[in-house]
Amino acid sequence: MSSNSFGKLLTVTTFGESHGPAIGCVVDGCPPGLAIEASEFAPDLQRRATGKSRYTSQRREADEVEILSGVYEGVTTGTPIALLIRNTDARSKDYAEIARTFRPGHADYTYWHKYGVRDPRGGGRSSARETTMRVAAAVIAKKWLAEHHGIRVRGHLSALGELTPRAFDWDAVEDNPFFWPDAAMVAELEQYITALRKSGDSVGARIDVVAEGVPPGWGEPIYGKLDAELAAALMSINAVKGVEIGDGFAAVAQKGSEHRDELTADGFTSNHAGGILGGISSGQDVRASIVLKPTSSILIPGRSLDVDGEPTEVVTKGRHDPCVGIRATPIAEAMVALVLMDQALRHRAQCGDVGAMTPRIA
Amino acid sequence: MSSNSFGKLLTVTTFGESHGPAIGCVVDGCPPGLAIEASEFAPDLQRRATGKSRYTSQRREADEVEILSGVYEGVTTGTPIALLIRNTDARSKDYAEIARTFRPGHADYTYWHKYGVRDPRGGGRSSARETTMRVAAAVIAKKWLAEHHGIRVRGHLSALGELTPRAFDWDAVEDNPFFWPDAAMVAELEQYITALRKSGDSVGARIDVVAEGVPPGWGEPIYGKLDAELAAALMSINAVKGVEIGDGFAAVAQKGSEHRDELTADGFTSNHAGGILGGISSGQDVRASIVLKPTSSILIPGRSLDVDGEPTEVVTKGRHDPCVGIRATPIAEAMVALVLMDQALRHRAQCGDVGAMTPRIA
Amino acid sequence: MSSNSFGKLLTVTTFGESHGPAIGCVVDGCPPGLAIEASEFAPDLQRRATGKSRYTSQRREADEVEILSGVYEGVTTGTPIALLIRNTDARSKDYAEIARTFRPGHADYTYWHKYGVRDPRGGGRSSARETTMRVAAAVIAKKWLAEHHGIRVRGHLSALGELTPRAFDWDAVEDNPFFWPDAAMVAELEQYITALRKSGDSVGARIDVVAEGVPPGWGEPIYGKLDAELAAALMSINAVKGVEIGDGFAAVAQKGSEHRDELTADGFTSNHAGGILGGISSGQDVRASIVLKPTSSILIPGRSLDVDGEPTEVVTKGRHDPCVGIRATPIAEAMVALVLMDQALRHRAQCGDVGAMTPRIA
Amino acid sequence: MSSNSFGKLLTVTTFGESHGPAIGCVVDGCPPGLAIEASEFAPDLQRRATGKSRYTSQRREADEVEILSGVYEGVTTGTPIALLIRNTDARSKDYAEIARTFRPGHADYTYWHKYGVRDPRGGGRSSARETTMRVAAAVIAKKWLAEHHGIRVRGHLSALGELTPRAFDWDAVEDNPFFWPDAAMVAELEQYITALRKSGDSVGARIDVVAEGVPPGWGEPIYGKLDAELAAALMSINAVKGVEIGDGFAAVAQKGSEHRDELTADGFTSNHAGGILGGISSGQDVRASIVLKPTSSILIPGRSLDVDGEPTEVVTKGRHDPCVGIRATPIAEAMVALVLMDQALRHRAQCGDVGAMTPRIA
Repeated sequence: MSSNSFGKLLTVTTFGESHGPAIGCVVDGCPPGLAIEASEFAPDLQRRATGKSRYTSQRREADEVEILSGVYEGVTTGTPIALLIRNTDARSKDYAEIARTFRPGHADYTYWHKYGVRDPRGGGRSSARETTMRVAAAVIAKKWLAEHHGIRVRGHLSALGELTPRAFDWDAVEDNPFFWPDAAMVAELEQYITALRKSGDSVGARIDVVAEGVPPGWGEPIYGKLDAELAAALMSINAVKGVEIGDGFAAVAQKGSEHRDELTADGFTSNHAGGILGGISSGQDVRASIVLKPTSSILIPGRSLDVDGEPTEVVTKGRHDPCVGIRATPIAEAMVALVLMDQALRHRAQCGDVGAMTPRIA
Repeated sequence: MSSNSFGKLLTVTTFGESHGPAIGCVVDGCPPGLAIEASEFAPDLQRRATGKSRYTSQRREADEVEILSGVYEGVTTGTPIALLIRNTDARSKDYAEIARTFRPGHADYTYWHKYGVRDPRGGGRSSARETTMRVAAAVIAKKWLAEHHGIRVRGHLSALGELTPRAFDWDAVEDNPFFWPDAAMVAELEQYITALRKSGDSVGARIDVVAEGVPPGWGEPIYGKLDAELAAALMSINAVKGVEIGDGFAAVAQKGSEHRDELTADGFTSNHAGGILGGISSGQDVRASIVLKPTSSILIPGRSLDVDGEPTEVVTKGRHDPCVGIRATPIAEAMVALVLMDQALRHRAQCGDVGAMTPRIA
Repeated sequence: MSSNSFGKLLTVTTFGESHGPAIGCVVDGCPPGLAIEASEFAPDLQRRATGKSRYTSQRREADEVEILSGVYEGVTTGTPIALLIRNTDARSKDYAEIARTFRPGHADYTYWHKYGVRDPRGGGRSSARETTMRVAAAVIAKKWLAEHHGIRVRGHLSALGELTPRAFDWDAVEDNPFFWPDAAMVAELEQYITALRKSGDSVGARIDVVAEGVPPGWGEPIYGKLDAELAAALMSINAVKGVEIGDGFAAVAQKGSEHRDELTADGFTSNHAGGILGGISSGQDVRASIVLKPTSSILIPGRSLDVDGEPTEVVTKGRHDPCVGIRATPIAEAMVALVLMDQALRHRAQCGDVGAMTPRIA
Repeated sequence: MSSNSFGKLLTVTTFGESHGPAIGCVVDGCPPGLAIEASEFAPDLQRRATGKSRYTSQRREADEVEILSGVYEGVTTGTPIALLIRNTDARSKDYAEIARTFRPGHADYTYWHKYGVRDPRGGGRSSARETTMRVAAAVIAKKWLAEHHGIRVRGHLSALGELTPRAFDWDAVEDNPFFWPDAAMVAELEQYITALRKSGDSVGARIDVVAEGVPPGWGEPIYGKLDAELAAALMSINAVKGVEIGDGFAAVAQKGSEHRDELTADGFTSNHAGGILGGISSGQDVRASIVLKPTSSILIPGRSLDVDGEPTEVVTKGRHDPCVGIRATPIAEAMVALVLMDQALRHRAQCGDVGAMTPRIA
């Protein structure tokens, strides 16, 4: 089989290679009656865009979304919504010389082994270009979640290499190219990335995503738990090597009396669980974190093999980000939003008539 | 919908509550011709069993597996394999008094909100009792993976609260009740757990799982990546709050020149990636780690609410583990094995005839 | 893969062989709060049962359903409902002599080619014994459909060989062992079947199923249409070779002006469409028909081959029905009910909040 | 949920409305290494095309396929193949006046009830325009089936209203606009359709599809049987009201001794079963038949209601076929081919290593 669809009741199927003619997606299962226009996709696509600043890849794509179906007179009809973006700045020549070699740490090696063939243009299907369509699809999910449940999904960088924020302010996040919550550190980050670029190296990052307003009850035990689906969704993002819910790995050294979130008439007293208990949302903020590895596409030569098994040395000269995590915040938000909308529909399917039985505790 | 099935081509559906009459599973999609007998399930079930030692829950289940279907004359026929285990040591009275209250940090709160009703006996469906069937199903997967691909999946505890191994030896792991790789520390762990039990508290843990022998090429971009499916599988285990592949969160502070695994004629020079690149296995060991939170079922009173929303104080008097992570190693192995067998069949479906095109590099 | 699960949001997984220790199923996705007890399964199981009369197979099974999970204090909890029936009257010796031969027209030939191995006891998995669990699962679906939507699903034989009813009365259907709607013909049918049994031959049959009360709007274009899913569900029943919706094949020779169902203020003027337009229910009765082939398990010798490819002659001496269609009415009803409940949940998932927009026409 | 994807391992997702900007599909799961070019889609699309002759709808679409992804240097890469066709001859004005009324027998009534909104342009999503993408996707499936298994899938009209062929010759089928196997009757058919068009009425039709070369063993009991999946696939085609496998409904009046296909050293002596036993292919030709109802879009006025529930009279003035069955033959072939390729991959997944055990009988 092949697995280019995501979600059970809100199903997003993406297609397209980095340097092919176009990328696109089909969003199936969106309820009818949601107002949506092509112009609404621009803001999140720009937040994610390569070429946004001098701190990320220099590729410049227009990322203009064409709605091919599923929307009539500005309103979703319940039929599949197809979105298309033409690739406009694909410079395949940059990659020609590495078509026969495998970049250390890159997917071209495993794609070759899996399929016995590959599209080397810009990384083909394994390129982060694919995530553009996740962000586009999630524009629909974010809007539906906001309108129907008052949910807000947003994220920020919480570590750039060894740097971590010394202060936190949501308002700062969108005011700098790093999605950094501490405005006072932006100059420091700029110097850090500039030095990194000059050295030809890359670095990892950490992103936190928070979903506010999620009602209790979403998530499907045992194998469709909310945290399990978030984990799959986030781990599917290029370069992600780890996922945490709530306190995550810090819980290794915590005591039960410390980790558990007590419940009072005023609500929970803490949120170590990240808003999920037993795979079901508790009504608290849903909190997830990811780590993005340092990209392997760097200017520092690395030992590798070519397709004939001969040793070689690889240097990646294409346009790449010194830290792919910088522009991954909207992608992480997108995956969280898509999971939540899918779970909302799934919950409604099974428990939609629980209303009368709904417990009195909010 | 409801989500009690796991896997696409090897599909495991589990059923049963902790204190209901039985638990069981249906394993669908196993190829015909695999020899399997009821007695083969015992070893892994005993490794996982509650009551294994005085360091875990005192519940004692026989865990005898009855094969109801799918096996004829000791060989799988290709039809669904149903496995059944009768519950024999269910003491519901232990839980009677908490039927109307929510334990802080426990799934009973969210189950109540989701379904408007719940089975309070022993945690019902949210109990770790369900994981017994994962381990049983994985006995089939482990055997198939070993016979057809020479794959070995095994795990060990890599942290118990603040304790971490000072030495590593696979041989030690199965010789102590903690799945601990450092034999010299076992006495220390015993004292640690005993003290913890006396204090009425619990602690978190970390488990590492390694799959050796996985060939390159398994995993399905973009939304069925091997690491994404491992993340979902592992996060679905009770109490897990985080998943890492390879170096995981350590990659935040790594440089690209440090993280990437170089490739020489003698193979990879390191394995920071955990054997997965672009969501596809690279032929290296697949390495995954998880954190299990400290159980919220402790003897130290905690503030909570009852089903009427009235404040109350909760103490869990049932038989529980001071560290649920101790016996989770076989469960983590099980999920990794189930994911791998599923991916093996999926790879064969799409790329089964790639043979002639297979690249020369192993 | 293997495909022993049915339905997307109400998922029924069946397991078990005809002469194995047990048959069973897991019903996943049933909403919480439905009252159900073990005794409620008996009526439909008896309607379907072998041994019901001298006109069907002489195998006598108790068919006692044990509810293993998913129901607490008589009410569904939203977790998977496992049902188990022990086989009590399995006489494998009847089949021993045909273990190495293929019955003409029987699935043992194709199972052998597919799996390279088979369970010959009573037809193994290919036996109609499996349909017992469909009927059991559908008891839940029928009850839910009745309680939540006032839907009634019932069927009757509409042809037995060349015989067809000369009158129609729903009340007659349950008063004879043939599910025949014309009481005056029952003696004629008895003679027909008796003669058939004596001749050692078998005959085909036709069954009609009607679902009353289905609201407009159920069914999912393009590939989850209500009629398409009914077709798959009904064709999956043993021996079924054709499915019709509404007028079915009679529409070949109809004119559009004759076939279309006109709409007036008093409702539709006819129901040629069988209650489905464009794959979506119209609010009229949903009508489906099936043909069941004459069973190939007959006493008249037939040419065949054995597992070594040697020519042989086969006579089936086991207990079999001269017309398998006679007791298939409850099975056909079951599949229609399962499809409808699944579609009800699917419709609720996507269009559950359409309420405010619902058109004024009922 | 919504259901615009078809197939489990070869998954086709279609999108697009009749008079929207474009229609398209994503074919996911195609093995890598299959040579395919845009020009290869033209022949089957032309066979299906509206405007092919004066006997079908006058709409004239270029139906030029653009391959957006999944193919590199003329070879499939294993990644999703997206195909796009721009609509060029959409005249929405034809439909403007019926935007507020429901055509008797048409899906616009049920779409309205399901979604609470609809795209009235040319029938929107319910238009047979969607089937264009099924035919396009099946070009890939047909080629793969032919190259890997020597399978040929073809069909023909077997009844046009009350007319049936008096002779049969595959060679004749492609030489007339009716896919009619009796060349001598073509003039008769032309007169029949011309008279029908003048009368403003429509008529039903019957199509037979035959797949030659299908090996024994394809199909997945119990709920993924080959015949069940064919039934769903064929019933999902616009206007189809019935599906038969092999002798189909004729089996009602057949005896077992007549229906069963005996087996000799020279092979089967007949093919009443249509090449499928127990839901698994037997190695004989797979034979399926469908009925297409007479289209409800006719010039003869019919009683109906408008969106306000007011009685009205409807005449469909758009470009329509007097017999939609005429050009449905390639669509029926397409669905059979898609089902077969999907089942081929599924069989390989579960039984791909059965080789050594394969029975000696072919």
